[in-house]
Amino acid sequence: MGFLTHLESIVSQVDGAIACSVMGFDGIAVETHQATAQAEAATSMELSNAWVEYANILQQLKNAAEVLKTGAVAEVSVNSEKLITLMRLVNPDYFLVLGLKPEGNYGKARYVLRVTAPKVKAEL
Amino acid sequence: MGFLTHLESIVSQVDGAIACSVMGFDGIAVETHQATAQAEAATSMELSNAWVEYANILQQLKNAAEVLKTGAVAEVSVNSEKLITLMRLVNPDYFLVLGLKPEGNYGKARYVLRVTAPKVKAEL
Repeated sequence: MGFLTHLESIVSQVDGAIACSVMGFDGIAVETHQATAQAEAATSMELSNAWVEYANILQQLKNAAEVLKTGAVAEVSVNSEKLITLMRLVNPDYFLVLGLKPEGNYGKARYVLRVTAPKVKAEL
Repeated sequence: MGFLTHLESIVSQVDGAIACSVMGFDGIAVETHQATAQAEAATSMELSNAWVEYANILQQLKNAAEVLKTGAVAEVSVNSEKLITLMRLVNPDYFLVLGLKPEGNYGKARYVLRVTAPKVKAEL
């Protein structure tokens, strides 16, 4: 089973999910699945811009965690007016990122990313 | 009612809360309340180091949001092995930050910060 199946599974399980990617810390997506390709085209463009920016910030948080005594960063979420973004580290080079509508199921999103991360890790 | 009363109220309402601050984006805390001053002294030292780092990252996210079309950032959380940190913007200069044990009540923490932020804003 490839990444894409996992990403599809995440998006289909979470109400309000817009798109999910496996991304490198360089901000380049390895694989992406969008909920509805046509309808959300504009949104997904904005999403990828946001995620490149977030990848950079996640990298900084990861570096900060090495200096601080708070342990490794496992999950980061950024909730803005029009978009909830959840990121979960898969390994030191890659992370899962999920974009949700603000009214989406945040709790389910966290759960699904947590259980899917080890499956994605096994394939990297 | 000053900031401190709000911070005490947040910490007392959330299971697993370690400390809560009103912080500026320069990383300087305006006011802080800790759950149990003596017991958690070491932890709170690490907390303040982490928060200075996070303040910087939150500032970047805020700036990024102006360029991206995702709307203003309202809430950011960083979950690491030993610490959950929740941040909620109060106004363009200040934010609330809450440190939780990893087993703390994350949902309640989000809720309490959301309802308390406007009260703190009214006093700034």
